[in-house]
Formats: sequence, C-alpha cells, structure tokens
Amino acid sequence: MVISKARDYVVDNLKYALSPRSIAVVGASRYSTKVGYKVIEGLYNWGYQGKIYPVNPRADKVFGLKAYPTVKHIEDDVDLVFVAVPAHIVKSVLEDCVAKKVKIVVIATSAFKEIGRGDLQNQLTQYCRDNELPLIGPNLVGMGSPYLNFNCGFIPYLPIKGPVAMISQSGANLLAALGTSQKDKFGMSFFVGLGNKADVDFCEFIEYANKDEHTKCISLYIEGLDCPEAFLDSCKKVQKPIVTIKVGGSKIGEKAAFAHTASENTGTNDAFYDDLFKEAGVIRATTWQEFLDVSLALGLMPKLKGDNIVMITNGGGSGLLSCDHFERCGVPLHELKEISEGLSQRIKAYMPMFGSPLNPVDISGTASPTQYKGAFTQAMRDPNVHGLLGSICPTAVTNVPAVTDVAIELWKTYKHLGKPFIMECQGGKECHEAILKLRENGIPAYPTAEQAVNAMIALYKQGQITDLNPLS
Amino acid sequence: MVISKARDYVVDNLKYALSPRSIAVVGASRYSTKVGYKVIEGLYNWGYQGKIYPVNPRADKVFGLKAYPTVKHIEDDVDLVFVAVPAHIVKSVLEDCVAKKVKIVVIATSAFKEIGRGDLQNQLTQYCRDNELPLIGPNLVGMGSPYLNFNCGFIPYLPIKGPVAMISQSGANLLAALGTSQKDKFGMSFFVGLGNKADVDFCEFIEYANKDEHTKCISLYIEGLDCPEAFLDSCKKVQKPIVTIKVGGSKIGEKAAFAHTASENTGTNDAFYDDLFKEAGVIRATTWQEFLDVSLALGLMPKLKGDNIVMITNGGGSGLLSCDHFERCGVPLHELKEISEGLSQRIKAYMPMFGSPLNPVDISGTASPTQYKGAFTQAMRDPNVHGLLGSICPTAVTNVPAVTDVAIELWKTYKHLGKPFIMECQGGKECHEAILKLRENGIPAYPTAEQAVNAMIALYKQGQITDLNPLS
Repeated sequence: MVISKARDYVVDNLKYALSPRSIAVVGASRYSTKVGYKVIEGLYNWGYQGKIYPVNPRADKVFGLKAYPTVKHIEDDVDLVFVAVPAHIVKSVLEDCVAKKVKIVVIATSAFKEIGRGDLQNQLTQYCRDNELPLIGPNLVGMGSPYLNFNCGFIPYLPIKGPVAMISQSGANLLAALGTSQKDKFGMSFFVGLGNKADVDFCEFIEYANKDEHTKCISLYIEGLDCPEAFLDSCKKVQKPIVTIKVGGSKIGEKAAFAHTASENTGTNDAFYDDLFKEAGVIRATTWQEFLDVSLALGLMPKLKGDNIVMITNGGGSGLLSCDHFERCGVPLHELKEISEGLSQRIKAYMPMFGSPLNPVDISGTASPTQYKGAFTQAMRDPNVHGLLGSICPTAVTNVPAVTDVAIELWKTYKHLGKPFIMECQGGKECHEAILKLRENGIPAYPTAEQAVNAMIALYKQGQITDLNPLS
Repeated sequence: MVISKARDYVVDNLKYALSPRSIAVVGASRYSTKVGYKVIEGLYNWGYQGKIYPVNPRADKVFGLKAYPTVKHIEDDVDLVFVAVPAHIVKSVLEDCVAKKVKIVVIATSAFKEIGRGDLQNQLTQYCRDNELPLIGPNLVGMGSPYLNFNCGFIPYLPIKGPVAMISQSGANLLAALGTSQKDKFGMSFFVGLGNKADVDFCEFIEYANKDEHTKCISLYIEGLDCPEAFLDSCKKVQKPIVTIKVGGSKIGEKAAFAHTASENTGTNDAFYDDLFKEAGVIRATTWQEFLDVSLALGLMPKLKGDNIVMITNGGGSGLLSCDHFERCGVPLHELKEISEGLSQRIKAYMPMFGSPLNPVDISGTASPTQYKGAFTQAMRDPNVHGLLGSICPTAVTNVPAVTDVAIELWKTYKHLGKPFIMECQGGKECHEAILKLRENGIPAYPTAEQAVNAMIALYKQGQITDLNPLS
C-alpha cells in the first residue's frame, strides 16, 4: 500500500528485524522438513544469541525449546515475530502481536495479493499501520546478518561479513546472492527479503542501511515500486552508493512480477525506471552477475574521481576485451601519453621489448611479479591516474600466487590515496583462488575482463553521481 | 598476408598440427623456467604419444631426451616443428624445415609485425608459401587436443574432452578458456593459438574443424580478419555452428589489436563485422563469458526449431530475470496457453496453489524432485514446445542433487526428440556442483539466469541460420 515517504517509526524499528533480542516463530513445526522447523533450526545452528520462542498450540516443545500456544503466552518481551502460518490465520497472530507490543512482525507466508487476495493483504497492512506495528512481507524468505550470526528464515546459507546490504523482493535471488557470498567471498552487512512489501518498503530499508555501520553499498533487487516518490526521497538523503536491478519490464515480466510478489508495473516501463534511478542517483545493473559485481566494487572501493583509468595486464587479449568494453560503456580508455607525461616510459622499464605501453598496457605473458609490482606502482603513484585495473592471465611462466600478493601489498601501501584498484584474473583453479584471496583482502576481483570493467565503470558512475549531489 | 580462399594444402596439413606423429622443438632449453623447456615438459607430462626431438645446438640432452643441433640433423621424419627462438634466427630454421620436408611449422616467437617488423614477417611467410609449408603464427601460445593428451606450447592446462574447437588469436584468452575447461567442465575437441596468423588463417582452421569428428561447435576469438572474403567463403561451406567474439572495434582497441597480434582493423568497425558475421552465418558474442556460454550450448545441444521455449523454475526471481532477458534479446517468451492448449493445466498438477503457471512457470520454492520431474516431463513431451529451460534455486527445502538427477534422467529419456534442454542453477557450492554434473552429462548449465538465456538464444539463432542455409 502506497506511502508518500519513509515513516520514522518504521525506520527506527527495523533494527529489531536485523538485531532482535528475542524472536517468536509462529508456525514452529516439530517436523524437520517443514519451514516452521527450519527457521528455528537455522537460528540455532548459525549461532543466534538472543531468545527463541516457538509458537505452536499443538506442541509442548519444538527443537528442544519450550513452545507457546500464542505470542501472548510468552512471558518476556518479544522484539520480532516471524510468521509462517497459512494466510487466513495471520490476522489473529497480528492481533496478538499488537497486544504483546512486539516491535516488528515478519510474514513469510505466501498466497496473498500475488494470487488475488489483495483485499486480505490490504486489511492486514492497514491493521498494522493503525497500530504502528511495522510489517515486513508477506511472501518472503527471511533476513539476517553475518555480523550477528543471525539467520532468520528458510535460508541454507549465512553470508560472509562484508560491505553490501542486500535488499531483495525475490527470495530465490536473495538465496543466490547468499550462496555466492560463501562460495565467491562476496561480503554482506545484512540481507532481507521484502516479498510483497505490503507495508515496509524499499525506502525504509534504504534509510536504515544508510545508518548501518557495516553497510558501504546498498543493493536492491526490485520487482516493482508502489511509491516511486518515497523511493526517490529516501535515495536523495543517502550518501552511500545504491545499486539496483529492476525486473518486470518485459511484456510477460509484468505479469510474472505480479504473480510472484504482487508487484505492479503497468505504465512503468524500463525507461520510466531509468529516469527514476537517474534522478535518485541509483546505479542500475542489467544482469544479475553485473548486479553482484558492481555491488562488490561499490562496497569495497572509493569512487573514481575521473576517467584516467590505467589497465595493466600480461595478456593482450584480456586488454582488448577490456578496452572495447570500456568504450562500449561510454568511458573509453585514454592512452598513457594523454594521461601523464613520462608514465609510458616509466612503465616500459618493467616490460620486454615486445610488450605494449599503450593503455591497456601489455607487460606480456612473460611478466614476473617484480615487473607487475613496478608497473602497478608507477601507475598507482602517478597523480594523474584516477584508477588502476590489473589483470593476471596464467601463462606457463606466470606466478599467479606471487602476483596476487603483489596486488594485495600494493593496495595496502596505496589505499590511502583513495584510488580504486580492481583486479581481473582469468583462467583455472589458481585464478579462482587468487580472486578469493584478493576479495578477502578488500580488492574487488573478477574472472572476466568485462566484469572487471563493469565494476570500474560503476565506480566512475558513482563519482559522477556524487559530484552532482551536495550531500556527498 | 592476404589469401582469397582457404588453400587445400594448408587444410590438409593441419592434421599434423593437431595430431603429429613427431615434433621437433627448436629452442628447446635446459633451464626449467624457459619457454623452450616448458614446451617439452608439457608434451611429456600431459602424455603425448609421438616422438619428441629437442633442437638445441648447445645441448646434448634436454629433459632427458637426445638433442639435435638443427632440424636437418634429426634422422626420422618430422611432422611438426615448434619454433621458440628469437625472430632473427627463424629464417634459417624455416630453411631447415623445407629441406627436411616437415609437414607444418609453428612459430611461437613474438616480436614480428606487432612491433613493426612487418617486412620480416612477410618475407618468412612468402618463403613458406613458395615452398607450400604451412606456417602457424608467429606470436602464439600453442595448440593441443584432450583426445590425444596432446598439449604443445607454454600452456599450463589440458582441457577436458568435449565438443568445442577453440581457435584464438590471443594466447591469454585461449589459456583462460583452457583453465575454465578443467574448472567448469567446459569440454573441447581441440584448441589452437593463431597469433599474428601470418600464413595459416581462420578460414583454414574452420574448414579443418568442420571435418574433425569431435568438433560440434567452432569457436573463434578474432582480433582482425585480413581476408574477410576467404572467411566468408569457408563459413558458408560449414554446417557446424560457428560462434565468435571479435575485438579491436574500439578506438584504442584498434591500436591495441595491432600491438598485440598485428591485426589490422582500419576501416572495419563493429558494424562491418556484424554484417560479415550475419552473411557468414556466424553467431557473435559480446562478452567473453557469453562467448564461452554460447559455445558450450552450441556444442552440446541441437538447434531450436522455433521460439516456443518453456522455462520452469522454483524461483520467481530467476524467472523474472530470464523473461526480461529473453525479451531484451528479441525472443520474448510466450505464455503457456499460447504455446499449447492444456499445457498449463497439466503442469499445474505439479505445483502448489501459490505457484504460477505463466511462462516462466514458477513451481515455487517448495518444489520437490517429483514435482520438477512432472513439470519438466509435461513441457518436454508437448509437441508444441521447442525447448526447455530448467532452473534450480536453493531454498532450505530444495534437494539440489536430486533435482539435478531428475534433469539428467529427463535428458537421457527425451534426448531423441531433438529439443534443446538448458539448466540454470544459481546459488552456492551445491549449485556449482550441480552445474558440473549436468555438464558432464551433456547438459549446458549456468549459474545465472541471463547466461542460460543467452545460451538458449544462441540455439534459436542457429536455428534461424540453418533455416536459411541449404547445406544444413
């Protein structure tokens, strides 16, 4: 239901969704295959430190914990109520929540507006609003934070700690990001599914994320915005980078977005959202991979202060993929001689005669860690250079781990200069390991040239956005 | 140097580059860090079964093998001579090769036309042509085939066996593909670096690949075509799918392509190549990841015979990413009711009430392997359905390995129908393992929705191409 701007009581209470001192799970099941069991199992196994209250009128114990017939029967205060019971029972649960003065309620249950029960969803929402009880959902997968070992929902992964707040209407895509987090070292500050976002909306989580100390990038998977004005208003208050992927713009996607999260997209095509995001200072990704890649870069690196980007690689092919993609994205590379007098000569000291000191700089397939270090350092220290894109291609003589360490050392030494540093490492197992190690050391690293370029372009866009925003 | 069409003596002799009975390595080094040592070590360690002759006038033995002062000193016949000596010595090596009547010569050495020594390169090329000795290179990384345990060059990987012939001007990008092969189960029939392609050109390898029994898809990384007419002529003779990524189209890329492999792109912008590839019936990829993804699909799956593609997923978000991307690529999904009467009802039997039988079909996050099997089977058996895209999102109740087995069983059962089947599996470690297992069983599988869609679109394009080509 439409709101005109983010509500303070909601923003203030979102901390209870992401760091509750106590949680009641309504619909807690004794059967280990059921969602209502998985939620409690997940909370317990991932190491949640607060109190857990299973609510089930037909059980004395669930997962070894004392069960309560209703929320009202719980003796102590309850911050968060997580609801996983059928739609028609939810109203009475909400009444108990209001009576118990819980801080926030999350409805995981599906089968509301997305299957035609808009009236029921609206009634529940209005009831919550009348009682200033923020409602997250319905029709969602859960939320959590790795900083608190908090994983609340039916979610098989806890992400690793890091800078990205992931706010997603889709449970499946949120799970994909969480799975990627562990596997590919994609660090998150917190994550939340919004589902149908009947009450609590993107704008409110954006304002919460802006205040969250661990969040450096706010990432949004959107199926539809009911309140574009409220979204715009909140985004304009935010200094942190915001990146989004917005779906539902295709003819069949419009129907699918409604069937999935009851998201309404009639009359709001992709161009409408392009304009909205531009005005809001939000970077829009086109594909899921780009969404993740760009989020990581915006979370880990400062913005680019100009377009003097230098790329240094031991693979001419990788350089070519990159410079073509830079130009395709509207930010063509400049030759070294246009960027800084003498830089080309200084870098040439670290390459064989058949290398190429253009830009991309090809230090050749024979490049040693020492040559990498020399070339990287020359580029990074040059005051005219705004950002550095390094690339490792595994030839038979490339020492991938040693070059990885060179990159990490470089970043430690020159991080204070505030210039983005991104790495590409294309190839087999040792390259994947290099990417993980680089990411663990705060350097966005990617397996293909275009992914690394997309990441750098996003930092450039963020520079352009913040140039225009007096708050930044 | 320009040729007007593929030369028969070259095409006929390319078998000696990819399955030579004997190899002489000129520039074989005694020092284990040197390229000339790595080549012999690679041949030996990967299991090459033919004869290896190190050539080094200053050594008696290299890698424990008897060394020869020149190629002419080798007693037996030599099929392939691999040259890794400095540019100014190459001419005399070629003279020895001609005298010895070797079948084909590969020059790995760099520092020819790409650094301004065009005249030297042309002289060597003309000499080889005058003597009908095909020359591959110069300035390349090597070649090989997993079917023969043959890995000749400075290449740290041998790919796994499979359908894709990878023909690349860039060594670094070829290495990236080879590394990916092992790590991500990307199967290849053979691979070759072309480097500066002074003599042997793409057209000749395309005709060779068309005859190669293991090759099902011909994949080309191109930095520039000196002979577009010869390329066009050869492509038109080929029935197998051809996919390419062409770089060097950007302003700086044009210079970088010359500095890398002496490729000339003046006057041939991206639109020129778009037209050429269209006329040639070649599918063009934009990014390296798309190039790999599409190659795999074209290698493993039949072409799509129409655009009635059904997508079945347990994640509505994944479905939305997909249907938006299908439309963005110009092949929008049709609703089930438009595809086949009753299909929607038949599939509905395998989903809960809050699923969505649109297209994408969302069988919901609670979907069991049995429901997957039922829904997949209904779609695959429907005579109006041309192709199936399946998707697994790992919710807390998704049995990813069991659904993977359902997909593999489905493909075994219905492969004979000749309909493409592609899988997407987004998430963590178990999803990566599912992708590897699916690929091992001949099913193209990808970690993101857009990658899977790109693969399906390529099969659709291939259908359109072969509809127009009377040879197919």
